[in-house]
Parts: sequence; structure tokens; C-alpha cells
Amino acid sequence: MPFTATVLTMFPEAFPGPLGVSLIGTAWREKELWALETVDIRNFSEDKRGFLDDTPAGGGPGAVLKADVVARALDSVSGSGRPLLYMSARGQPLTQARVKAWSQADGITVLCGRFEGVDQRVLDARGFEEVAVGDAVLAGGEAAAMLVIEACVRLLPGVLGQADSLSSESFEDGLLEHPQFTRPRIFEGLEIPEVLVSGDHKKVAQWRQEQREQTTRERRPDLWAAHLAKSQLKGAKARGE
Amino acid sequence: MPFTATVLTMFPEAFPGPLGVSLIGTAWREKELWALETVDIRNFSEDKRGFLDDTPAGGGPGAVLKADVVARALDSVSGSGRPLLYMSARGQPLTQARVKAWSQADGITVLCGRFEGVDQRVLDARGFEEVAVGDAVLAGGEAAAMLVIEACVRLLPGVLGQADSLSSESFEDGLLEHPQFTRPRIFEGLEIPEVLVSGDHKKVAQWRQEQREQTTRERRPDLWAAHLAKSQLKGAKARGE
Repeated sequence: MPFTATVLTMFPEAFPGPLGVSLIGTAWREKELWALETVDIRNFSEDKRGFLDDTPAGGGPGAVLKADVVARALDSVSGSGRPLLYMSARGQPLTQARVKAWSQADGITVLCGRFEGVDQRVLDARGFEEVAVGDAVLAGGEAAAMLVIEACVRLLPGVLGQADSLSSESFEDGLLEHPQFTRPRIFEGLEIPEVLVSGDHKKVAQWRQEQREQTTRERRPDLWAAHLAKSQLKGAKARGE
Repeated sequence: MPFTATVLTMFPEAFPGPLGVSLIGTAWREKELWALETVDIRNFSEDKRGFLDDTPAGGGPGAVLKADVVARALDSVSGSGRPLLYMSARGQPLTQARVKAWSQADGITVLCGRFEGVDQRVLDARGFEEVAVGDAVLAGGEAAAMLVIEACVRLLPGVLGQADSLSSESFEDGLLEHPQFTRPRIFEGLEIPEVLVSGDHKKVAQWRQEQREQTTRERRPDLWAAHLAKSQLKGAKARGE
């Protein structure tokens, strides 16, 4: 069995979306390096009228996806022991380190919320990991689920091939990526930075490292602080402290 | 003209995905409260063989999307003055505050990268805002673009109606949302927290606020620190300091 991404959703018709195109799509449909399975939560209501949700306990607007409906949907799929993810604005922020860990499992099972959310008891009882993708509120978890699945699948052996590269990427060592340039040498009067066309590999590497540090410092003070702390620790170890 | 989301992508067939379902989809197809437009970047090569990319200046693996190709694709669409977003792991992290601001424009134009990225000159020359959605590396920007568009569109008047609620959401006041519960009262032996079925609205509100603070403190020390700083500022102002 290849890596299997199982999605519990009220809208299976939203899939595959971006998971069906390019190298990710080819790896699924042609190379069968991974599998996509959608489970329609709407099939798991035991209510005569097919209701999936009910009003929030304690009052308030909107509706909450019922614990028993989610539990039945989850119990219908195989893959016990796989990471169980619930896409939620309340979650821990997505990190590349978590993506890497998930991509090394047999697969992942991803629950997409709707309404005001899901009854917390089923999340706790089944051990869902709550994951937030960007500090924005969504109508449902489907787009976030696609993003997480894509991030995992591209790390599987054979998926990207030579057309892309896993080396020196953003987050791999805690720094953002350097900017990229390509031909033509002049675009609308703007030249490629001279060092990049100098042929001096050492200077190119140095310039890129400086760019990575500067961009991280400016755009991601959080990552920069973590990077500095790590560097200091390394330095202290090297000095035998 | 309603709010228009224009996507520059090499894979228009990935759309609409989650943008075509539920209330977001109905608001687009039936109510015409917003419009989705995809522009195929593959149509804007001037190379005989249709190449869109070239090798990175300065060397390194992979390929870079050419500045002139992106520029021609962008110039083919209307919507000057709209926010121009480029989905990139190098970007500023997505926030609900940015989403709100974008949702108040006529629309947004979103560039989806592929390969190792896009020639930085066209991003700088045209004033693209680089946006990161979660600290993960993707194969392309399409899933992230869908996520951003969904977050914007759900804030447009009339899109969500009564089925969802914009009040007391995660990030609205810098705190994560409280957990939700609904019937049945007992699920697999787990009861709904007693306070939520007490009928005491004041206690419910207090419990929820405590939950919001506790979850934010545990899961998002970054948001919690910002929340504390804001509270202290308010307190100081209230005391006339």
C-alpha cells in the first residue's frame, strides 16, 4: 500500500483540486506513489433527516458537527495508527518538521471541519492533532487539508523527480529561501544581481546566505530568533562550554 | 462588478476545488457575490517551445519561472490597483487582519508559483506582496491561493448568511476560539462540560473566556504575548497613564 491520504469531509467533490495536477497528480494517478481517499461525512448521520450538526452547548450562533457522526465516519476507514489531523484555526501552527514526520507514516487521515467546528469530545477521544494553516478563518478545512497533503506527498520518494528540488528550501535549516533570478539578464531595465552572473561560486553562496539571513530577519523575526538561539548553542558546544 | 479573485497559475484545472462547494460556491455560481477568474500562465511564453522557466542565475537545482512570462500574464488581466499576492514560503505569514483588508478591495490577484520560484524582479517591479500560508513547502501555490481566496470571500456581505457566524472567531480579538460541544449529552462516556448545560449564561461566558485564554497560552505563545501587551496598554490607558 502506498502512502494514503484519507479525507473526512462534507464536500468530497472539492477534491482532488491541486492534488490532481502536476507531479503530485502524476504520482497519484499514474505512478501510484500515493493514494487519495475521500469519505463523505454526510453518509454517517443516524438522524432520519440526515442532520450532521446541532446547536452549540451553552448557546451561541451557528452549529457544531456532532461527535457521533465524526466517530462513525472515522471508524469506517482503515489506517489505525496513522496521524489523525483536524484542520482548525484553534490548532498548533503547521510546520515543515511536522509535515516531515507525517510523510514518514503509512498515510494521514485528515478531518475537515465546517460550521462553528467539531464537538471537542471526539477530537480528544480519538486523539486528533489540531493543525492551523495560516492565521486565517476559513469556511471549511478542505483547502487546508489539500495544502497539508501536498506538503506531505511531495516529500515521498520518487514524487518530485528532477523537476524540483528538496535541497536548500525554506524552513529546512530555519531560514527562508534566497530570492531567485533567471534569464533574460535584463527585465524591464532591471538586471540580475551582478554576483549571480559572476561565475564565482563562493561569492554566490555567500550572497545567497546573506539574503536568506536578511529576509528571515525582516519577515520572520520568530524564525530568526530561533535560528540565533540554535547558532549560539552550536557555538558554545564547539567551544566545549 | 463583484469581488473578483484572479489566479495566475500553470494549472487552472486545479480550480475551483473547495471554492466551488458549500456557501462559498453558491455565492459564486448562483448569487454572483464574487467571481473567480483563472489565467493560464502557460499561454504567455514567447519561446517557440513554450518554455516558462529557465535555470537559476548563479546555479543550483531546479528552474525559475521567468519574469517576462509572469509580467505578460499579469498585464493580460484587468484589476489594476487590486492587492497583488504571490504565494511563497518566503512571504510574510498570513494573518486575519490582512485577509480583512484584502476582502475590502475590488478583488485580489494571486500568483501561484511552481519550480524553485519566480524571478524576483517581476515580484518587486509589480509590487507583489509575498504571502506564506503555514510554515510548509508546497509543490505549487494553488492550495494556498484557494485558502486565501476562501478566507477573503467568506467575509463578503451575504456570503455566509445565518449558517455560519463571523462573531467571536479565532483571531478576531487575538485569542483562539473556545472548544465546542453539542448533543448528545454523553458521547462514548464523555459528558458535555457541566457549565455549558447549566443555563447560567454568565458562567458560560466566563468559562469560554478562560478556555480561550488557556488554549491560546498553550498553543500560541506568540498570540498570547501580543494579547498580554495589548491588555496592559489598555489598562494603562484606563488608569490615565
